[in-house]
Amino acid sequence: MALSAASSTDLVEHKVDSKELVRGSFLHAKRDTVRLPDGSLAQREYLLHPGAVMVVAITDSGQVVLERQFRYPLGRVMIEFPAGKLDAGEDPLACAQRELHEETGYRATAWARAGATHNAIAYSNEIIHLYFAKGLVAGERQLDAGEFLEVFTAPPEALLAAVRDGQVTDAKTQFACLWLQNWLSGQWPLQWYSQAELSAATATATA
Amino acid sequence: MALSAASSTDLVEHKVDSKELVRGSFLHAKRDTVRLPDGSLAQREYLLHPGAVMVVAITDSGQVVLERQFRYPLGRVMIEFPAGKLDAGEDPLACAQRELHEETGYRATAWARAGATHNAIAYSNEIIHLYFAKGLVAGERQLDAGEFLEVFTAPPEALLAAVRDGQVTDAKTQFACLWLQNWLSGQWPLQWYSQAELSAATATATA
Repeated sequence: MALSAASSTDLVEHKVDSKELVRGSFLHAKRDTVRLPDGSLAQREYLLHPGAVMVVAITDSGQVVLERQFRYPLGRVMIEFPAGKLDAGEDPLACAQRELHEETGYRATAWARAGATHNAIAYSNEIIHLYFAKGLVAGERQLDAGEFLEVFTAPPEALLAAVRDGQVTDAKTQFACLWLQNWLSGQWPLQWYSQAELSAATATATA
Repeated sequence: MALSAASSTDLVEHKVDSKELVRGSFLHAKRDTVRLPDGSLAQREYLLHPGAVMVVAITDSGQVVLERQFRYPLGRVMIEFPAGKLDAGEDPLACAQRELHEETGYRATAWARAGATHNAIAYSNEIIHLYFAKGLVAGERQLDAGEFLEVFTAPPEALLAAVRDGQVTDAKTQFACLWLQNWLSGQWPLQWYSQAELSAATATATA
C-alpha cells in the first residue's frame, strides 16, 4: 500500500517575493514572502544547501565503518556514518565514493543506492543521499584542512543498540540504521553494482 | 555492546569568539571563531533552535496518525508525524501533548518517551524529542494562524513501505519509523505512563 502526498485541500504556498537573508561563508539563507492557501501572506526563512551524501560501508567481516567527529553546534563528539557535501554539479554516487575515500581511506568494489533523507524540512532544502558500499579495500585517507575525525568499525547490532539507548542521535545515521536493519533482515533488498559496471555507465553517460 | 563517543585523539573545538550572523523572524544564526585540535583557527556558522518534539500516536486499531504539510524550502507536500517547536521553558512532554492536540485534535491517555534525534548536526543545535501516545480520544484541532495541514491515519506497514520506496523522506519521521518497527516487533520496549501518573508527577515536581 502506498502513501500519497497528494491532498484534497490545497496546501501549497506560492512565492510572492524572495530576498537574501544572509550569505555567510557556509550558511546561505533566504527570506521569502509567500501566499498561503487562504490568500494571506507570510514569511518563510530557510537555508539553501548543496545536498550531501552518506555511506554505509560494510567490511568483509560484516562490520560497519563509523566516525567520531566533534560537532560544534552541539558541543560534543557524535558517532556518524561517513558523509559529506556535494561539490557544485557533482554526481551523488561520485561524491559518496570521494567522501568515503577521503574520510576513511576505503575504496569499495560494489555500491548500492538506498534512498534519501530531508533532514530539516522546516528550514533547509538539504537532501542526504544514502549509499551502501562493500568489498572494501583500505588505503590512506585524505582529510580536508581543518577536518578532524576518527574512523572505527562496529557490528551493526552494537550500532542499533546505541541508537535505541540514545548514544547515537545523528538523524542521518539513524535513517541509515533503518535501512541497515531492514537490508540485513532481507526485508529491504538493495541493487548492487560493481565498480566496473559503474565506470562503464559513467563512460557511456559522458561519451 | 555500547559505542562510546569518547576518543583517544582530542577532537574538540574551543570557542574563541562568537558573533551574531543573522537574527531573522525565525532563523537565528551565529558565527563563532574556534580553535581546532591542531591549534589553528576556523569559523563555524550555525543556527540556534529552541528544540522540538514529535509524536507517534497509535489508534485503537493500530494505525499511526500522520500529517500532510507543504514544506516551502522543498516546494512540496511532505508526509510527517505530528511535530512542533518547544515554547520557551516548555517541558518536552507537555509540548508533545499540546502539539498533538493542536494539530490533530487527539488527546492520549498513555505516553512513552522514545529517544531523540539531532537532525542537522553540521549547522544547527536542534534536537527533536520523540514520544509515543496511545489511548487516543478525538477532539477539535486548533491550528495556529497560517498553519495548514491534513491529518490522516495509515497502517505502520504502509508507512514503512513508503519510507523504503522513497515517498517519505522526512528525517524525523524516518527516525520514528525505526522506533515504530522495533517497538512493534518487541525489540525496543517502551515504558508507558498514564495521563494520571504524569499529572501526579508534574504536580509533585512543581509543588
